[in-house]
Amino acid sequence: MYVNEKSTQISGFPELLPEEQLVLEKFLQITREQYTLYGFTPIETPAVEKKSVLISKGGNEKEIYALSRLKAQNGQSPDTDMALHFDLTVPLARYVATHKDDLIFPFRRYQIQKVWRGERPQAGRYREFYQCDIDIIARGILPLMADAEMPAIIYSLFERFSLGPICIRINNRKIVTGYFERYNFSPFQIQEILRVIDKAEKISQQELLEEFTKVANLSQEDISLAMQFLLEQRSSEETLEMLKKQSFGDLYEQGVKELETVIEGMKLLGVPQDAFAIDLSIARGLDYYTGTIYETLLVKHPDLGSVCSGGRYDDLTNCFGEEKLPGVGISLGLTRLVVTLLRKGVLQTVSKTPARILVSAMSSDLLPLYLRIGNDLRKLGMATEVFLDPTQSLKVQMKYADKKGFRFVILVGEQERERNVIGIKDMISGEDVSIPEETFLDYIISLPQE
Amino acid sequence: MYVNEKSTQISGFPELLPEEQLVLEKFLQITREQYTLYGFTPIETPAVEKKSVLISKGGNEKEIYALSRLKAQNGQSPDTDMALHFDLTVPLARYVATHKDDLIFPFRRYQIQKVWRGERPQAGRYREFYQCDIDIIARGILPLMADAEMPAIIYSLFERFSLGPICIRINNRKIVTGYFERYNFSPFQIQEILRVIDKAEKISQQELLEEFTKVANLSQEDISLAMQFLLEQRSSEETLEMLKKQSFGDLYEQGVKELETVIEGMKLLGVPQDAFAIDLSIARGLDYYTGTIYETLLVKHPDLGSVCSGGRYDDLTNCFGEEKLPGVGISLGLTRLVVTLLRKGVLQTVSKTPARILVSAMSSDLLPLYLRIGNDLRKLGMATEVFLDPTQSLKVQMKYADKKGFRFVILVGEQERERNVIGIKDMISGEDVSIPEETFLDYIISLPQE
Repeated sequence: MYVNEKSTQISGFPELLPEEQLVLEKFLQITREQYTLYGFTPIETPAVEKKSVLISKGGNEKEIYALSRLKAQNGQSPDTDMALHFDLTVPLARYVATHKDDLIFPFRRYQIQKVWRGERPQAGRYREFYQCDIDIIARGILPLMADAEMPAIIYSLFERFSLGPICIRINNRKIVTGYFERYNFSPFQIQEILRVIDKAEKISQQELLEEFTKVANLSQEDISLAMQFLLEQRSSEETLEMLKKQSFGDLYEQGVKELETVIEGMKLLGVPQDAFAIDLSIARGLDYYTGTIYETLLVKHPDLGSVCSGGRYDDLTNCFGEEKLPGVGISLGLTRLVVTLLRKGVLQTVSKTPARILVSAMSSDLLPLYLRIGNDLRKLGMATEVFLDPTQSLKVQMKYADKKGFRFVILVGEQERERNVIGIKDMISGEDVSIPEETFLDYIISLPQE
Repeated sequence: MYVNEKSTQISGFPELLPEEQLVLEKFLQITREQYTLYGFTPIETPAVEKKSVLISKGGNEKEIYALSRLKAQNGQSPDTDMALHFDLTVPLARYVATHKDDLIFPFRRYQIQKVWRGERPQAGRYREFYQCDIDIIARGILPLMADAEMPAIIYSLFERFSLGPICIRINNRKIVTGYFERYNFSPFQIQEILRVIDKAEKISQQELLEEFTKVANLSQEDISLAMQFLLEQRSSEETLEMLKKQSFGDLYEQGVKELETVIEGMKLLGVPQDAFAIDLSIARGLDYYTGTIYETLLVKHPDLGSVCSGGRYDDLTNCFGEEKLPGVGISLGLTRLVVTLLRKGVLQTVSKTPARILVSAMSSDLLPLYLRIGNDLRKLGMATEVFLDPTQSLKVQMKYADKKGFRFVILVGEQERERNVIGIKDMISGEDVSIPEETFLDYIISLPQE
C-alpha cells in the first residue's frame, strides 16, 4: 500500500530537520542544567489527564484533544475518559494533590514536556510544543524571596541562551486590582479590565479607550487617570516612587510592598537593573495568578512577545483539596522560541551530526583499525562516527563528511600505515596533518573544542 | 469544584515520584550520551501521525488512540485524522519519506520519545512509555558492519547502566526462513512458524510440539529435526560450525554468511564473547525484519524478557515510496526497564533533589549573604538550593535537608559571621567543619563528588 508522502505531514505539528533539532536539543539541555543548578527536581506526568480534571481547570474544550480507540475492544465504547494536557500547571496541581504525602515542601520541581492545543494553525502558533516549567509550591507560607528567585533564574537561563539582552517585565496583580477596588467592580469586571490592559501593546490608544469603556462603567476622566497610571512610561524606580506615594486601600498597599520586596530580592540575586522593568500593564490571561506576575521579552525580538511568563498563585490545588498550597512559577515556551528564531535566521544551524569526528574507511583490510580508533575516541568522550563502507571512494566519503558537517576526518590508508602515522583533516581550515600513532590521542585531545 | 484525588490517576500511565524520576533521568541522560558518542543525531517526530499511516503500517487498531476535540469547532466534526504513534519506527519511516531530499545518507538517527498503546493494563505493561531508538538508514547498500555496530552500542550502553552482565542474543532470519524453504511453505506459514519459535522459551517442549504441528504440515521426524536445529543448547562457535556444515539453499547460506560476518564485526568492535550468544530461536514478532535480529537479556533478571531488541530490514519506507531504503536499528524500552527494576528494589533511589548543597537561612539579616553563596556555588556548576525562609527554625531546615537528601548543608549564623567562617555539615558523616570565608570555594570544590 502506498501513502502519498506530502499528505502525511500534519499541519501545526512542527517537525525539525536534524540540524535544527540539534539546536533545539542544545536549548533543552541548557534549560535542564540551569533548572537543576537551582535545585529543581524533574518530574514527568502522563501526556493525558482525565477529561474532568482538564475541564474543571478551565481548559478550552474546543482546543483539548480527547482520546478514543481506533477500534472498540470487545464491544466496549471506543471512547476513553482521557485527554491530552494543554499545559503543565494543571498536571502539576493534580500531581501534587495525588502525591502530597510523598513530597517534601517547599516542593521545587521542573517539568519539560510537550503540550497539545488544537488551535487554528497560524504563524508562530503550534498545536504541539515544549513547555519548560519550574514552580515552587509551599505548604503554608511561601516567602516572597521565591518570587524574586524566578527572575534570577530567567536571567541566568537567557544568559546561557546568548540571545542578546532581555527585559523581564514584572507586576503585581494586587496593585491593579487594588487600584480599581474603590469602584466596586465585580471579580468578573476586574478580570475583564485585566484582559483589556493585557492588550495595551497590541492595539491603538483609541481602541484601548473604547475597549475599556465597554467593560468598565467609568467616567472619561477616571479612564484617563487609570490609563495614565497603568501605561505611562517610567523607570522602575519612578514607578515604585509613584506607587508608594499613593494609596487605594489595603490590597493595593500590600501589592506595592510585595513588588518592592521582590525587586530588592532580584537585585540581591544578581539580576542587573537593565534586565528588568516594572510594567503595571501586564496582567497575564490566566485568572489563577494572585500576586507577582512576569513576562520576558527579547529586546532585539519584541515581535516574539513574551517568551517566558509566570507568576504567584495563592492556591495551586484549589479544586483538588481543602489545604492551601501557594506557589510561584514560570513557563518557557521553548519550541516557539527556537523554531521562530531558526526561521528568522537569528539562530543558525551548525551541522547535521552531533559527532565532530569521522573516521574514514580507506581499505577493507584496515577496517579493524578504523573501528579501534573509533572506540578509542569514544572512550575519551569524543562523539565519533566510523564510516562503515570501505568500498566507497574517498571522494564520496569526504563529500559525506562535508555535507554532514564533521569538523575532523581521520584518514588512514596503506601509506599512513607504512609510516605508522594517522592523518587528520580539519574540515574548516582544510589543513592536513600526519600524527605518529603513539601520540595521536594526545593530539586529538589538544584540538579546539568548537 | 472538587475532584476526588484518588480518582484522578490513570491506570497504565506510570507516574514517578521525584526520587524515582531522578533515576529515570539518569538513564535517559546516559542513553542520549551513548547514542551521541556513536554519531547518531537526535530527531523528534510529532506524537501523532495520520491514522491512515499508522493503520497501513500494521498497528493494532484496538490499541491505537485517536484524537478528537472535546468540543467541535464551528459545527465541524470533533474528530481529527490523527492518532498517537505506537512506536518510533513508523514515524521514522514517514519522516525519512517526507524529508528524504534534506537528509544525508547513511542517516544515523536517535529518537527518545514516549509512545502510547491502549493495552489492557497488567504488571510490567504500560500504555505510555519511553522508547529509545537508533537506526542507520542507507540509500542503496547498507554494509553488514552496521549490523555489528548495534550490539557494540547495546554493550557500551549497558556497561554504563551498571545493571550487571547482559546477553545479546543474535540471529538471522534468513537462516530460519532458508531452513524451511525446501518444504515450500507460504510466506504466511513461515511467519506462523517464526511466531511459534518465538514462544519457545515461554511454553513446554510438548506444547511447542503441538503448536508446531498446528501451523506446519511436517512429519514428526522433520519437526524433531527442526526443533533440534533451532533450540539445542550450544555455544556460539558450535552453532556457527553446525550452521556452516549444512546447506538448505541460497537464502540459508546467505544468512549464515551474514551472521558470521556480523559476529566477526562485533568482536572487532569490542563486544566480549560472554556478552552475546547466537540463538536461532529468536524471531521478533514484527514481520519487517529481513536479516539480523537482536534481543537483550539482563542475565540476573531474565524475567524482564528482552530489554533492547531490533534488527535489519530491507526497506524502511516500503509503503511511502518506490526507492529501497535498507536499515538496521534497535529499540530500548526504558520506562519498563527502569520502573520494573525500581519496583523490584534492584535500582535504588538516592535523593529527592538533584542539588547536593542546601544553604540554610539562619538570620533574615544575612539573607543577602546566603543568596550570594548560592550564586557563587552555581557559578562553579554546583546545583544548590538556598532555603528562602529565615523565619523557619534551624531544626525545621535540617529536617528538610535530611528528608530531601542534600549531601551538604551550609550554615552561617551570627557566630560564624563574627569569626569570618562558613559552616558546612556533611549529612552522611554528620561531620561539621568551619572554613575561612576566603578558602570556602576551594574547599567546596575539593569535596567528594558522590
